[in-house]
Amino acid sequence: MRIDGKPYRTIWLAADGETVEIIDQTRLPHDFVVLRLETLEQAAHAIRAMQVRGAPLIGATAAYGLALAMRADPGDDNLAAAGAALLETRPTAVNLRWAVESVSAALRPLAPAARPAEAYARAAAICDEDVEICRAIGEHGKGLIERVRAAKGDTGPVNLLTHCNAGWLATVDWGTALAPIYMAHDAGIPVHVWVDETRPRNQGAGLTAWELAQHGVPHTVIADNVGGHLMQHGEVDLCITGTDRTTASGDVCNKIGTYLKALAAHDNGVPFYVGLPGPTIDWRVEDGLSEIPIEQRDGRELTEVTGRTAGGEIATVRITPEASPAANYAFDVTPARLVTALITERGVCPASAEGLLGLYPEQAAAGRAAEG
Amino acid sequence: MRIDGKPYRTIWLAADGETVEIIDQTRLPHDFVVLRLETLEQAAHAIRAMQVRGAPLIGATAAYGLALAMRADPGDDNLAAAGAALLETRPTAVNLRWAVESVSAALRPLAPAARPAEAYARAAAICDEDVEICRAIGEHGKGLIERVRAAKGDTGPVNLLTHCNAGWLATVDWGTALAPIYMAHDAGIPVHVWVDETRPRNQGAGLTAWELAQHGVPHTVIADNVGGHLMQHGEVDLCITGTDRTTASGDVCNKIGTYLKALAAHDNGVPFYVGLPGPTIDWRVEDGLSEIPIEQRDGRELTEVTGRTAGGEIATVRITPEASPAANYAFDVTPARLVTALITERGVCPASAEGLLGLYPEQAAAGRAAEG
Repeated sequence: MRIDGKPYRTIWLAADGETVEIIDQTRLPHDFVVLRLETLEQAAHAIRAMQVRGAPLIGATAAYGLALAMRADPGDDNLAAAGAALLETRPTAVNLRWAVESVSAALRPLAPAARPAEAYARAAAICDEDVEICRAIGEHGKGLIERVRAAKGDTGPVNLLTHCNAGWLATVDWGTALAPIYMAHDAGIPVHVWVDETRPRNQGAGLTAWELAQHGVPHTVIADNVGGHLMQHGEVDLCITGTDRTTASGDVCNKIGTYLKALAAHDNGVPFYVGLPGPTIDWRVEDGLSEIPIEQRDGRELTEVTGRTAGGEIATVRITPEASPAANYAFDVTPARLVTALITERGVCPASAEGLLGLYPEQAAAGRAAEG
Repeated sequence: MRIDGKPYRTIWLAADGETVEIIDQTRLPHDFVVLRLETLEQAAHAIRAMQVRGAPLIGATAAYGLALAMRADPGDDNLAAAGAALLETRPTAVNLRWAVESVSAALRPLAPAARPAEAYARAAAICDEDVEICRAIGEHGKGLIERVRAAKGDTGPVNLLTHCNAGWLATVDWGTALAPIYMAHDAGIPVHVWVDETRPRNQGAGLTAWELAQHGVPHTVIADNVGGHLMQHGEVDLCITGTDRTTASGDVCNKIGTYLKALAAHDNGVPFYVGLPGPTIDWRVEDGLSEIPIEQRDGRELTEVTGRTAGGEIATVRITPEASPAANYAFDVTPARLVTALITERGVCPASAEGLLGLYPEQAAAGRAAEG
């Protein structure tokens, strides 16, 4: 992707070959600021404070966090401590665990002196793999958008609705939910995106709108309350969201409010697609509603809003009475029955155990081995 | 209701017996400011700028607006012009039209000199009638809450969810959706209210939370995205909202996002009630989705957020990129099939033509007369 015309990823090795640079997403859309991560603690903080966010990017940042830890101290104790510290930053994202566990497993058998180089190589590979996965999700999803355009008689734009940010800012490049939209747009298919504001952190209003604007994709920001009304009136042709964790049965855990949009899509016959990289699937979880812990974050994310004043300064204002408590649930679970299909790097499949195993047959073999 | 312990209505005749005073609701929850309305233009501005809002209070303010107009010039031309100006302020609220048409009809046959006194008397009567209607809605709705409490084995609080502000700030006193909650609370039934923030104007975060806090009712502010998750996990016993216009068939036009909560309630077997005064029923409309025009407001209500800084000042911040357009639909329509029952001043009835006509049989006679 490009920012002001210059190509970027969301995370990259700095020119010194050891430290890591990220885009501080808490400063968007108002300021474009690049941060340098020099230590494990800084990487963990970046994840916890949501300077980086989005399941794939969290995984990539965690992998580089391990590399930064190995650079400081490649011993066994520090390897274990670094992994534990990273796993604690965000409880919901399965990519985080996947990245930490796969890199840690690769490092453990190595002599400490060999670990830093291997950790950096693994982190770079995770980033490259994420880009390739997102590109493939984009290709498969583009086909769905082309079909909708054809069904509309090739007239008017295809109207899509998305929730939160599952664009290139949530991944290393391309995005998950937005990759099909970028590819359709680049292929000349007229698209228009309804962008859910996505309270309380406004990732839609601040991040999705910003990256769509950078890429020149027509879009309109709406309150999270609006999507149902638009679907009732035929103003949405399809929904695409990302996911932080998908269960083996196709339940989708994603940003709070996704479930409400899926209900509206179902009630109005609007297809509801979820774009996801394979590493986002948690094969150990069957029932998303009962098994996935939902992160609760600081209520101030809801009661305080940060933005730019008319004078150009960044300011934070409180919108609730001091006497009123607030609760801040970060995710919800959309049952598979409400999901039209999943868009993965291997293709499009029904949101079901059968659908997922059809694309990932090696998981069926792994499951049988675990049972045997 | 009481503010800092002192009894208030939301609109009242000033001590001079001619001008009218209101609470400036655009300043809540940060500042409690009383405004004086001296002219029709000021009354129309108060409605348009949402210094007063909520269907019943809009109706009461419009009635006093006509009185202020008659005080300035009681002639036929001014009576017609004043009615037209008031009708243009907000297109969705049916009470507005009801109040303007009923007061205008009463004034037209009178000699101009007799009109001011009659207009003030009618406006006062509309206010008193609204208080009585809301009190009755509260009594009927309290019974529903008592039954839920009994069904829970009289243990734990009854958890209610409400959207927007349909409390006493939306009416002259008591409220519609909140009247049953206040009465249950006052009767010693433990209640807890999940308060939808209600983007983009934050009437939940700013007004509902404020008035519940003033009355000492336990509550928690949540993002509009959260209600579905709470219902999935049994954290909501019933929903109660207000309505700006209810059709003869029981469709409910209310603040944007109400439809999404009704879908979630339906999906999780949570009762979804709507509290409404009889004057909110539009007997001429059958199909809410196709027949009710939905007001679109300035996109800046979404892209700019106003609140109090840590330093105590009121400030407005922009949350979206300058390059991103925004759309701001103010209402949506919840189909009658998703509404468990309507709570009116005459009792509780199914959301259907039969249900409504059972409580308002005079409308069946009026309908037959219109057809004959």
